Amino acid sequence: MRNKPHLEEKFKKHPLVIYKLEDKVNWVNFFGNNHPIHLEIGTGRSDFILKLARENHDINFIGMDKVKEALNYPVSKAKEEGLPNIGFIYGDARNLREYFDDDRVSRIYLNFSDPWTKRKHIKRRLTHKDFLELYKKILIEGGEIHLKTDDYNFFKFSLESLSQNGFLLRNITFDLHHSKFAEDNIMTGYEKRWLSEGKGIFRLEGVFKTE
Amino acid sequence: MRNKPHLEEKFKKHPLVIYKLEDKVNWVNFFGNNHPIHLEIGTGRSDFILKLARENHDINFIGMDKVKEALNYPVSKAKEEGLPNIGFIYGDARNLREYFDDDRVSRIYLNFSDPWTKRKHIKRRLTHKDFLELYKKILIEGGEIHLKTDDYNFFKFSLESLSQNGFLLRNITFDLHHSKFAEDNIMTGYEKRWLSEGKGIFRLEGVFKTE
Ligand SMILES: C[S@@+](CC[C@H](N)C(=O)[O-])C[C@H]1O[C@@H](n2cnc3c(N)ncnc32)[C@H](O)[C@@H]1O
Ligand SMILES: C[S@@+](CC[C@H](N)C(=O)[O-])C[C@H]1O[C@@H](n2cnc3c(N)ncnc32)[C@H](O)[C@@H]1O
Repeated sequence: MRNKPHLEEKFKKHPLVIYKLEDKVNWVNFFGNNHPIHLEIGTGRSDFILKLARENHDINFIGMDKVKEALNYPVSKAKEEGLPNIGFIYGDARNLREYFDDDRVSRIYLNFSDPWTKRKHIKRRLTHKDFLELYKKILIEGGEIHLKTDDYNFFKFSLESLSQNGFLLRNITFDLHHSKFAEDNIMTGYEKRWLSEGKGIFRLEGVFKTE
Repeated sequence: MRNKPHLEEKFKKHPLVIYKLEDKVNWVNFFGNNHPIHLEIGTGRSDFILKLARENHDINFIGMDKVKEALNYPVSKAKEEGLPNIGFIYGDARNLREYFDDDRVSRIYLNFSDPWTKRKHIKRRLTHKDFLELYKKILIEGGEIHLKTDDYNFFKFSLESLSQNGFLLRNITFDLHHSKFAEDNIMTGYEKRWLSEGKGIFRLEGVFKTE
């Protein structure tokens, strides 16, 4: 039996992880530059942003997850590879404002977010109006949400919610892997799973425009 | 062989049809009241608005089509039944402004509009930006577009185009006949055909909000 180091201790020490905040994070200091920030909320194993970070050195990637254990793998991986342009936040999206000032983030990725199917859990959906209001605060003008999901109801909900709350929709597909977006697509952990079960993947982008 | 009366003559004489305009139509005079106006663009056989007109006496329905022959059936039908709350325009949607003042129409129906699949015909799609700009002129604040189609690409295009041009999306379904909207749905001529061929029907609403 392998003896896992105590996660909390590990995270505290790891320079890549924001574990608990005393002050707002100064992301320019954190990354050592002011490159655009792309944030994945609900990043899980983070296969997706790890790959993006390897391939796009001019962008800083941040993965956020509210489950501490989920970050164990990607943090080790990022450290092992010495990736300078990736960081992780162990925290809940509802506290996003504690981590980002206004107009900080260029793009938010929502990949296979929990669909929260029941009506009474509607406020937990990461595309609920309340979350979109938070996103609009931290996004720059023209900032983007890129969303992928296998869940039809979550997708429909997101189309309506984004459209009704200040995001312009574009690059929609109801079948990502048979669309023009397939070629450049980077698979997430959940995506591989759903795909292997024969599920279709929905995708959309929303652009934040105040005009 | 039945001897059809010359269509042009028939339409000119028929009180229900706006055949050619000298002046703007005064719709209050035309209908004898100022009830809300619901307009179907590309109305064809008009099974849809004929049924709506029979069932909703407090709304005035107008069917518009650019093909004169298409209006032959619904005009006869409306006359035969003595429906007082329906009218028809033989004309092209691109000339919509010749028929309606600002803020005249409460709802526009687009049912199974020609999808104009080729990129070079994109401007002919009835949800192209240029058409939406016309719709916004004649629609009241809070006015609605209700759209049904069997065509996936036209539907995606419409989602994006409406969202990018001042309409808030709602009541979306990718499978109308297995959705909560099935019960109140009124079938159009084309809808019956596509359904019998096993096709799914997409549906959306867009609300015009200036704020
Ligand atoms: C279904 S997994 C998807 C993981 C990954 N994006 C993928 O596609 O493989 C959803 C993840 O979102 C995280 N999550 C859910 N709600 C969250 C919230 N409010 N704030 C931060 N993370 C959240 C969960 O802990 C989980 O790791
Ligand atoms: C596919 S049919 C659908 C008819 C009917 N709405 C239905 O669902 O059964 C499309 C109709 O739109 C009409 N149409 C196409 N473009 C138009 C335009 N620019 N202005 C007015 N009518 C148009 C065509 O003449 C045709 O009758």
